[in-house]
Amino acid sequence: MNKAYVHGYDYRENMRLQDQASTLVELLHSDTFYPAGSRVLEAGCGVGAQTVTLAGNSPDALITSVDISGASVAEAGKKVAAAGFAHVQFAQADIFNLPFGPDAFDHIFVCFVLEHLARPAAALHTLKNHLRPGGTITVIEGDHGSAYFHPDSRAARQAIQCQVELQRRAGGNAMVGRALYPMLLSAGYGAIRVSPRMVYVDSGRPEMVEGFTKKTFTAMIEGVRESAVASGIIEPQEFEKGIRDLYRTTEPDGVFCYTFFKAIGIK
Amino acid sequence: MNKAYVHGYDYRENMRLQDQASTLVELLHSDTFYPAGSRVLEAGCGVGAQTVTLAGNSPDALITSVDISGASVAEAGKKVAAAGFAHVQFAQADIFNLPFGPDAFDHIFVCFVLEHLARPAAALHTLKNHLRPGGTITVIEGDHGSAYFHPDSRAARQAIQCQVELQRRAGGNAMVGRALYPMLLSAGYGAIRVSPRMVYVDSGRPEMVEGFTKKTFTAMIEGVRESAVASGIIEPQEFEKGIRDLYRTTEPDGVFCYTFFKAIGIK
Repeated sequence: MNKAYVHGYDYRENMRLQDQASTLVELLHSDTFYPAGSRVLEAGCGVGAQTVTLAGNSPDALITSVDISGASVAEAGKKVAAAGFAHVQFAQADIFNLPFGPDAFDHIFVCFVLEHLARPAAALHTLKNHLRPGGTITVIEGDHGSAYFHPDSRAARQAIQCQVELQRRAGGNAMVGRALYPMLLSAGYGAIRVSPRMVYVDSGRPEMVEGFTKKTFTAMIEGVRESAVASGIIEPQEFEKGIRDLYRTTEPDGVFCYTFFKAIGIK
Repeated sequence: MNKAYVHGYDYRENMRLQDQASTLVELLHSDTFYPAGSRVLEAGCGVGAQTVTLAGNSPDALITSVDISGASVAEAGKKVAAAGFAHVQFAQADIFNLPFGPDAFDHIFVCFVLEHLARPAAALHTLKNHLRPGGTITVIEGDHGSAYFHPDSRAARQAIQCQVELQRRAGGNAMVGRALYPMLLSAGYGAIRVSPRMVYVDSGRPEMVEGFTKKTFTAMIEGVRESAVASGIIEPQEFEKGIRDLYRTTEPDGVFCYTFFKAIGIK
């Protein structure tokens, strides 16, 4: 994968993910909690931005969090320890080659991971092997094609498209959110239920203007400036105009919309 | 206005609006009800698709429904009479020249109207003159820029864009939903609160596949076929492919998303 855009590897990105996690915790995670004693796999924990929330919401579950990056796993471990949780175990592991047996887990949790995978449906299928019959999988992903705003701006749409294109070239899919239902279906899960979580931001919600439009979404798009220009996808001045127009949506008469998708399926 | 695309004037369109109204009643209207004795203006009632719901939810309010089309007002009157409601009065009138005094109403309700107006913010400002201080305005509009789907399709997006372009040429704005907050702000309303109502459809929700994706949204886009082709916006075969691709999203692995915006402001 192209490290230039991948989330979670440098300090600024790390801080951004923390901002994102705080602003979105209620919207994305408040309805996810697991029973006492249940064995939960967090597949793709990254630097632990969601792990702390997951652990806090399910204080008596037994959580195992894995990531393909050893550095991320170490970072996630520190974060969870700092929060005082002792019911999370960590391992460095590839989703396609997990060191767990069949039916090892009662529940699986996958958040902001499929967007980075070249074969997301295959990953969901593989994960199912480690889930007991009747166990659930919960998947959360964004979708950059769900972003629209006022005032509308072609340049802003092009700047967003740079992130989509770079992620595509790295084998991922920044518009994966809308496809959770068909992916879970093709992976063989049943009773699939998708609930979109739309983030709507106008100046009557100043904490979301700061926490989401500026510090999460626009910061993420700004983060691909060098890669986008270097790869010839866009001219620097076009990209800059796009970023200015994204910030324009945070003024008193601006509006910004984005949707995350949360899906649950049963084995 | 270009009658070829305007909603509510022929039998088929009328039926479509009824389907749309039934499927969306809960999502859009269940939280709108007015106190006994309150004077409510429905500005732009069309053929009454929403009037019956409005009247049913507020059985003791005094509702006045107006539309610029006398034929539509007559149709709305029949519909409300057939439903057995006697607390709705009708008048043929232009929003910009209403036959009511200042502060004549406690509440104003505007649904699927601003999208057709060349000066929507001015209409909201004019309506405010007829609202008592402390009274509310409720506005509901769609936004065609909020439509996205799986599988994604350039042709389908182009077919949707035909409707957007025709509505623009007729002086309207099919993407007005996202702009409710700034429009109410510029019209001088306070305490504005916008709540998006996203319609998410996958094959696990068959009533929405039929009621929304097929019979409401795709039927509406199909309805502009002749106008779009005649005006040279699109080639017939491209348009047909776009319609096929919209129907493709109603298959078992398809997904369709659309968002309505509901806003409330206070004078």
